[in-house]
Formats: sequence, structure tokens, C-alpha cells
Amino acid sequence: MSAVKACNILITGANRGLGLEIVKQLSEDSCQKQHIYATCRDPDAPKSEALRELAKKHPSVITIIRLDADDPSSIKESAKKVGSLVGKNGLNLLVNNAAIVANGTVQTSSVEDMKNTFNTNVIGPLLITREFLPYLRTAAKASGTPGMSCNKAAVINISTLGGSISRMPSVYEQFPVLPYCVSKAGLNMLTVLAAEEIKADEILCMALHPGWVKTEMGGEKAPLEPKESVEGMLRVIGSLTEMQHGGFMDYTGETVPW
Amino acid sequence: MSAVKACNILITGANRGLGLEIVKQLSEDSCQKQHIYATCRDPDAPKSEALRELAKKHPSVITIIRLDADDPSSIKESAKKVGSLVGKNGLNLLVNNAAIVANGTVQTSSVEDMKNTFNTNVIGPLLITREFLPYLRTAAKASGTPGMSCNKAAVINISTLGGSISRMPSVYEQFPVLPYCVSKAGLNMLTVLAAEEIKADEILCMALHPGWVKTEMGGEKAPLEPKESVEGMLRVIGSLTEMQHGGFMDYTGETVPW
Repeated sequence: MSAVKACNILITGANRGLGLEIVKQLSEDSCQKQHIYATCRDPDAPKSEALRELAKKHPSVITIIRLDADDPSSIKESAKKVGSLVGKNGLNLLVNNAAIVANGTVQTSSVEDMKNTFNTNVIGPLLITREFLPYLRTAAKASGTPGMSCNKAAVINISTLGGSISRMPSVYEQFPVLPYCVSKAGLNMLTVLAAEEIKADEILCMALHPGWVKTEMGGEKAPLEPKESVEGMLRVIGSLTEMQHGGFMDYTGETVPW
Repeated sequence: MSAVKACNILITGANRGLGLEIVKQLSEDSCQKQHIYATCRDPDAPKSEALRELAKKHPSVITIIRLDADDPSSIKESAKKVGSLVGKNGLNLLVNNAAIVANGTVQTSSVEDMKNTFNTNVIGPLLITREFLPYLRTAAKASGTPGMSCNKAAVINISTLGGSISRMPSVYEQFPVLPYCVSKAGLNMLTVLAAEEIKADEILCMALHPGWVKTEMGGEKAPLEPKESVEGMLRVIGSLTEMQHGGFMDYTGETVPW
């Protein structure tokens, strides 16, 4: 059974790549009372078919909800929906996974790519965290146990080594994805400030690097399969305590420098 | 005389605060052949009067140029103008100083403030660095000396402790300026990637924290006068070598962690 025993879990960008694999592993291995709110921009689109199939296989575990990280009204709407579904138990675990990548250097990055990556990768998680915060607070209060854990109440921001200001320069030649890196450094700042802001509520918040994974985003050359990355991330998520609050770790549990 | 002996210097946001003080100290203490391109969004506006007065006092040293960090076409236009003025000597020192601040927390930051701070504080410096890069390259080639220095060719990004992901959380309660912090973390990432990209051209690039300064942005409670901050920054800028390339320092020369 997965180390993640959180009851109500919400994952953004759940229709493909790592998001889909997280939903898959959690649902195949779910403990009693566990429910997964798998959100994506367009649940009815062809690109969401694998998620729809998965939800059909686990109808009592997975609920698909429309959530577009670029659209504040869709975020508000999804929060309202999930809030009424989770009720007095609240939301235990929010995984901000939805993200886009864009290539570019100082000389080639387009203004549009800079803006789009920032909107989806930073403003999205900001608004999602804000709108779901009341339900995370409900879960934290309902737990009755002291301290922090993802089974009580937590926000996990899927970041990347590409957001590490100290590490990224050495791999920039291999990965010229400046708009993506800039947005993820912004997400890392958002993570530490959110952690500061919600620590009194005993809601855990940290950033997680999934490794370089064979997904649509990571490409064919990536050394990691989504399965291995997600197994590692779920192990890390399940083991988190207040010691890792406001931190940045990779899927093996190693600390990543800012 | 100032430690900064760069011949052709361009400063953005030069009509007030730290930008104006940088122009003031450089022009009062300028060495022969030094010329300052003092740029701002609206040179004719009342808020630019102090800069116009300063330029009148030092007509052979200061040229005021319109440059709006939010407007790509104004950036291109200013680069063309400066490029033709500096000619075969090129541009030795570019100081990306123009920035805006916005208050907010996870719960209160507006989408508009998130976008505006990102546009001015990150996309602006990205496009400015790109457009002025040919003239920085000209200066680097023209210098004939090996290594890096601000007198040869350099990009200095005025950042802030508020952009330090490791340091900011501990002062977040005192300074709830999330949109500003997120944008400055993005600027720091831009700085290290730009440093990586232009190191073969021997153009120095680093981020500088001016301290907490009594300006319109820093407010009345700030402990530092602009004079002291800028004296420190010019001392640091004047002393930079390739050892500090891609780094983050404060106005006293101390390294700031990312």
C-alpha cells in the first residue's frame, strides 16, 4: 500500500504524464476512505482519455473535476465543487502538478512564452492554493493530531531541478528552457512564502523535484520512467513531517538547493 | 573618484530612488570619457524633473533616453539610439535597476500585481539585456584585456534580499510583498542563466542587493540612505571580477544565498 494515507487528495494536471501516474498509483493501491480528485483543463478532450479510463476502473476512488490553472474562475468553481464533496473532512493533500514548459534563452525566449509559463506555473498554483486553503484548514483541524504530515493537510508543489538557481546553470546548455526555469524559481519562492503563511494552521508545504522523467514534457532521452519517479515521490510525500516544511527535495528524498 | 571607470554606462529607472542616486554619484565623480545613459519610462514627466536637473548640471556626461521596461518596442528603440551613440566603443556597463513593488500574500495578491511585477522586474531585464547585448559584446571585444570587469563589459541586475528564497521567509511577516519576491526570484534565475549564456563573451553578469533603503519603494522605516547604499554598490561594482560572475551580493560585498 502507498505510504500516502491522506483521505482526500487533489491533483492538478492529472490527465497525463506524472499527474496521471500519481492518480494511477494512488488508486491502484488506495486505502479505505481514500478519494482522489483528479483535475485537468479539459476532462472531455481526447488527451484526457487515459484518465477517463482510469476513473471508470476505480469509480469509487476517482472523481474527475475540471480545473484550468490559467483560468481563475475555473479554479474558484472547482474549489467550490470539491469543498462540498469533501465536507467536514476537508482536503488533506493538494498536489500542484499542472505545468507547462517552454524553450528559450536570453536571446530567443518569447515574451509570450515568458508570460504563459508564469501564468500556468506560478499564478495558477498561487490561486489554487488560495482557493483550496479553507478545505485544507478544515482537514488540519479535523485531524486532531499535532504536527504536520501529508495525511493531515499538505500542499506539494511539483517543482524541478530547473528551478534551482544554484544547480540550473550547469545544465543550461543541455536544457535551454529559460522561461520554464524562471517560472519554477518563482514557484519555489511561492512555496517558501506559502509555507511561512500557513505554518500556524499546521498545513505542510514543500517543493518536490520528480527527476528527469520520460513524459511529453521530459522527452524521450530522460533516464527515468514515470512509474519510478512517482513511486519515489509518493514515498517522499508519505514520509514528510514538519521537518521538511518549506523545503525542496527530489523524488529520492535528497534535499535540492535553492 | 568612483571605483567604476566604465566608459559607457546605461542605467534603467534612473529618474528616482536608487537609479537617480547612481547617476548622481557617477556624474559628480566621473572620470574622463565616462558617459551615462540615464533611462526612464517618461523623461518629460514631473517625476523625472530631478534627473533633468542633474543632466543640465552635467550636460557632457549625462544623456537622458526614454526606455520603458514594459514596452518591447521602446526597449528596441532605446537600444538602437544608444548603439549609434556609443559606436565602436560599445556599452561597458548595463544596470538593470528599473523595478516595481507590489504588496500581497498567498491570500491577497492580485493576479494583476503578479503579472505587472513579473513584466517589469523580469521580462523587462530579459529584453533589455537581449537588445543591448550586441553593444556589450562590442565593448568586451574593444577592451583588449582578458577576464571580466564592469569597466570592460557587465550586466548588473539590481535584485533584493526579497528575492532570496532561503532568506525571505524569515522576514515575510514584516514584508508581505509576495508578487515582488516571486518576480525577484525569477530575476535571480534570469541572472544566472544570462551569466552562463554570455560568459564566453567575457561579459560579467551578477545580481546585487542594495540593502533596505529609504526610497519611495523602501519606505520611511528603512535604515539606509540612498547615498550610503549607492556608495556601497558602486564600490562593489567597481571591484567585480570573473570570480563574482553569476553571483548574488549585497551593497557591502557580502554574498547573499539564493
